[in-house]
Amino acid sequence: MAAKGISSAVIRRLPRYYRYLGELLENGVVRISSRELSIRMKVTASQIRQDLNNFGGFGQQGYGYNVQYLHDEIGKILGLDTMHNMIIIGAGNLGQALANYDFDRIGFNVLGIFDTNPRLEGLAVRGIEIKMSDELEEFIKTHDVHVATLTVPKKNARKLATQLEEWGIRAIWNFAPTDLQLSDNVCVKNVHLDESLMTLSYEFRNHEIHEQEEEN
Amino acid sequence: MAAKGISSAVIRRLPRYYRYLGELLENGVVRISSRELSIRMKVTASQIRQDLNNFGGFGQQGYGYNVQYLHDEIGKILGLDTMHNMIIIGAGNLGQALANYDFDRIGFNVLGIFDTNPRLEGLAVRGIEIKMSDELEEFIKTHDVHVATLTVPKKNARKLATQLEEWGIRAIWNFAPTDLQLSDNVCVKNVHLDESLMTLSYEFRNHEIHEQEEEN
Repeated sequence: MAAKGISSAVIRRLPRYYRYLGELLENGVVRISSRELSIRMKVTASQIRQDLNNFGGFGQQGYGYNVQYLHDEIGKILGLDTMHNMIIIGAGNLGQALANYDFDRIGFNVLGIFDTNPRLEGLAVRGIEIKMSDELEEFIKTHDVHVATLTVPKKNARKLATQLEEWGIRAIWNFAPTDLQLSDNVCVKNVHLDESLMTLSYEFRNHEIHEQEEEN
Repeated sequence: MAAKGISSAVIRRLPRYYRYLGELLENGVVRISSRELSIRMKVTASQIRQDLNNFGGFGQQGYGYNVQYLHDEIGKILGLDTMHNMIIIGAGNLGQALANYDFDRIGFNVLGIFDTNPRLEGLAVRGIEIKMSDELEEFIKTHDVHVATLTVPKKNARKLATQLEEWGIRAIWNFAPTDLQLSDNVCVKNVHLDESLMTLSYEFRNHEIHEQEEEN
């Protein structure tokens, strides 16, 4: 599968295609035209064709897409056809919430949960026992850990991430409200909840201003 | 403050500026040049100048930015200088995690938490009692609720969002893994955790392919 030179905007849209195709499958839809898909997804049909052409197309002109096939192919492109072992570091509310999430569906298997708080030691979330963070290095070196999810306080995140890289972690899903400083060998995906809410705040405020302007 | 025609890419970067400036303030930095800021943030100095020029500049050529002033001005642009009342609907793990988050810092005050599960009724998260969802309409109509955070299952999210719009909600922070179907009167910001993780999976996989290619 050619994957070079594909823009990050296209990559960011792929999970949304995957989700919509999954919903179509659930509803028993076998085949869909780019036009029908575009109406559901509120993007243009030409956008869909362009995006999918990056990976070789998957459709025949005038005949539409085979939903199951397209769903599975996009899943493969996203790497969802193989199981990734994940650990969660930080067993606070958010870490526990993520541990309880059903990420198995998309190929992520939570192997371990870690925290520094001795009160949490031995407690289990979804059947997975919380371990102490001093066991992290050993655990990573003896298990095939692909992804580390960070739900630790900001002040600990950077140092921890540097250690994780040293211990061989190559992908970090970061919820700490800070940018990690790692080499290009590590893939990092940030989920900055604060920033998401700030953007909503901006849109909400400017929406209001806009409405007022219309009223005047 | 002129806010028309500003691209969503600029808006998405503003919270990051706000965060970096907040860190500089914590470290006692009074003034910073766009060059210094650009090194820290790993964007170009011209990008920073262009972004900030959308809002009138804030700096004097060759003299740099006043950190406190720029921080506060960006905060105002983002609407963080006024308090927004928020409710959280869905008191599962994620809803409780968000209720425990310190969003007051950025101007969001959790007024109420709602769920349909009678077992949760009357339990408190961070001092806020969980109410039953049949009280939602009355609560929204008698309180000044600005933002509704949705941490409900996908199957309930769309119908609920439509009701929220009817009841007067104008901003939704949506964690349900589905696109809400609302009018343009409602601002929606989605946090699709599944999709974030899929993008990481893609990058991780293609990173690996890339490394293998280099080795061969």
